[in-house]
Amino acid sequence: MSGNLSVAIVGATGAVGQEFVRLLAERRFPVGRLKLLASRRSAGKTVEFQGRPHTIEELTDDSFQDVELALFSAGASISRKFAPLAAEAGATVVDNSSAFRMTPGIPLVVPEVNPEALEGVELGNGGIIANPNCSTIIMIVPVTPIHRAVRVRRIVVSTYQAASGAGAAAMAELEQQTREVLAGRSPTCEIFRQQYAFNLFSHDSGIGPDGYNTEEMKMVRESHKIWGDSSVAITATCVRVPVMRAHAESINLELEEALDADQARSLLANAHGVSILDDRTGNRFPTPLDASGRDDVFVGRIRADISRSGKNGVHGLDLFVCGDQIRKGAALNAVQIAERLVGDRTRRSARRVEVSLSR
Amino acid sequence: MSGNLSVAIVGATGAVGQEFVRLLAERRFPVGRLKLLASRRSAGKTVEFQGRPHTIEELTDDSFQDVELALFSAGASISRKFAPLAAEAGATVVDNSSAFRMTPGIPLVVPEVNPEALEGVELGNGGIIANPNCSTIIMIVPVTPIHRAVRVRRIVVSTYQAASGAGAAAMAELEQQTREVLAGRSPTCEIFRQQYAFNLFSHDSGIGPDGYNTEEMKMVRESHKIWGDSSVAITATCVRVPVMRAHAESINLELEEALDADQARSLLANAHGVSILDDRTGNRFPTPLDASGRDDVFVGRIRADISRSGKNGVHGLDLFVCGDQIRKGAALNAVQIAERLVGDRTRRSARRVEVSLSR
Repeated sequence: MSGNLSVAIVGATGAVGQEFVRLLAERRFPVGRLKLLASRRSAGKTVEFQGRPHTIEELTDDSFQDVELALFSAGASISRKFAPLAAEAGATVVDNSSAFRMTPGIPLVVPEVNPEALEGVELGNGGIIANPNCSTIIMIVPVTPIHRAVRVRRIVVSTYQAASGAGAAAMAELEQQTREVLAGRSPTCEIFRQQYAFNLFSHDSGIGPDGYNTEEMKMVRESHKIWGDSSVAITATCVRVPVMRAHAESINLELEEALDADQARSLLANAHGVSILDDRTGNRFPTPLDASGRDDVFVGRIRADISRSGKNGVHGLDLFVCGDQIRKGAALNAVQIAERLVGDRTRRSARRVEVSLSR
Repeated sequence: MSGNLSVAIVGATGAVGQEFVRLLAERRFPVGRLKLLASRRSAGKTVEFQGRPHTIEELTDDSFQDVELALFSAGASISRKFAPLAAEAGATVVDNSSAFRMTPGIPLVVPEVNPEALEGVELGNGGIIANPNCSTIIMIVPVTPIHRAVRVRRIVVSTYQAASGAGAAAMAELEQQTREVLAGRSPTCEIFRQQYAFNLFSHDSGIGPDGYNTEEMKMVRESHKIWGDSSVAITATCVRVPVMRAHAESINLELEEALDADQARSLLANAHGVSILDDRTGNRFPTPLDASGRDDVFVGRIRADISRSGKNGVHGLDLFVCGDQIRKGAALNAVQIAERLVGDRTRRSARRVEVSLSR
């Protein structure tokens, strides 16, 4: 096995797939061979990587021979069919869909939060790792350092979600609708059933019997699995806003111990994957545009919750966060998982060399 | 005094001022004479009302002779200067600015919630009545029937506020910026310091020492004054989103008694000023466009809060609401206050006739 990996991207033409290609280059991921896979419709197109055109191949049952790492982002049904085939062929799959997130035994990983869930996973030895939902990742990265310090008892979160969460076609629809509305024409609704331009709406995922939609329940259940702690009570309201590619979230936390704004700020300043933008004097706090194209989750409006006096031992904290939905919410998190696995492999090789030298 | 009133509109060229003119006509408000007042810059322009052009006059100290009702919407500094002059001249002022809202003795009124605060106010007898902040009105109209039934202990609210809240020029800036961004140009920022098109940002009002902005504290303090009950704990996060004229709010309530979604829905179905749009099967809930140009606050996503089990006697409910910022959030609420005063006057006259007939 060489130092460079044979990598496949499934869904190479999508918003996240394209970001995978950019990130592998930008982060100098050790790619030996890159296989770009998509539907038959896209096969034959070319994508530039490391200065050379790569031709997109049709995804088939036999696509994963000699693939060590497969990054999937082509929807849950494609993942359900092809991720097990890829794993059987020996590829380690990092899957961006919801297909396996809640499957027992499948690690659901945010590297800043639960890297220990990757223990035992070896690149090129098969296996599936799930990448959490974008809204979950963007919430859990800044909330975890607070949870570890003073224990979060309950979260009330309201999201402001970008078009990119529904894919490249949704971003194009938002742009087209906006042009139409500005021209005084009625907007074309294909991806979404409602006008998106200059409007917002409750997340369009299915609603369960308790009135919560699937996106909201992902935030609840995935957070519990990532933390390995389902005692944190969570209620979420997920809303799509006419923004292109970064999600915002208004987060209210109930804490077991008191934490003032300065203490919270210093916890977050030391956290991986977090940038603080919290300028009260200049009235500058995170916006989706600040976070777009950036790796970190941006955090601001850090303040003690005035509706929680600390009486009865309940303390409160409010945050407003923004994170790039395509990067940290999807492609970047998956690549960071892969980077951890590469690091583990390098450490294992070094240990094997050491052991053989010491014999 | 005739049945028809002498009415003045201060700030007649603004977004709310124009809506005053439309509403007075649409609701057949008993206008005898209509005086349109604005800055010198706008004086001489004409506005159509009841099929006739009305010329805008410059607002001066002497503008309020023979005015019985003055509807103010020209900002707090204009109100601070001219509302007392109007009241001294005998006009009853309904003021849409923040100038007098928290002044003791000045009623702060949402007609569906605390009409009793208008007791003793007589049209044409001077006096100032304050119209609450738009975000407060849009929250308190649907929350009050729930508060009255099962008592709200605490509110966690996150807003999605439209451009109109910052006036007609802000709406124009959002439109212009959007055109510029779509044309690949950099957006002109005059009203707001940050890009608004395809972006969102924390409300641009000043931030207090506790980290809350003025808009958020209005929601807290005005709700307490309107309810006459400052024991309801409230935390708010106010955010501007690229939407034209209706605000949305994600509202989480802590309740003293249990209330399931069906019970909440039936309470709200019987409430004045509320329309329910809560179709789980069709995934149709309130959007700003649904509420735009409409009188009611639209309520949906009505569900028991799964993060509150009812243990320790705490119950929870989630709502998502949308209301027209210019109508119910401003002009309509003020006109409804005036309509109450007209009704009171009519009842008083009828009583006087009755008394004189029975003599």
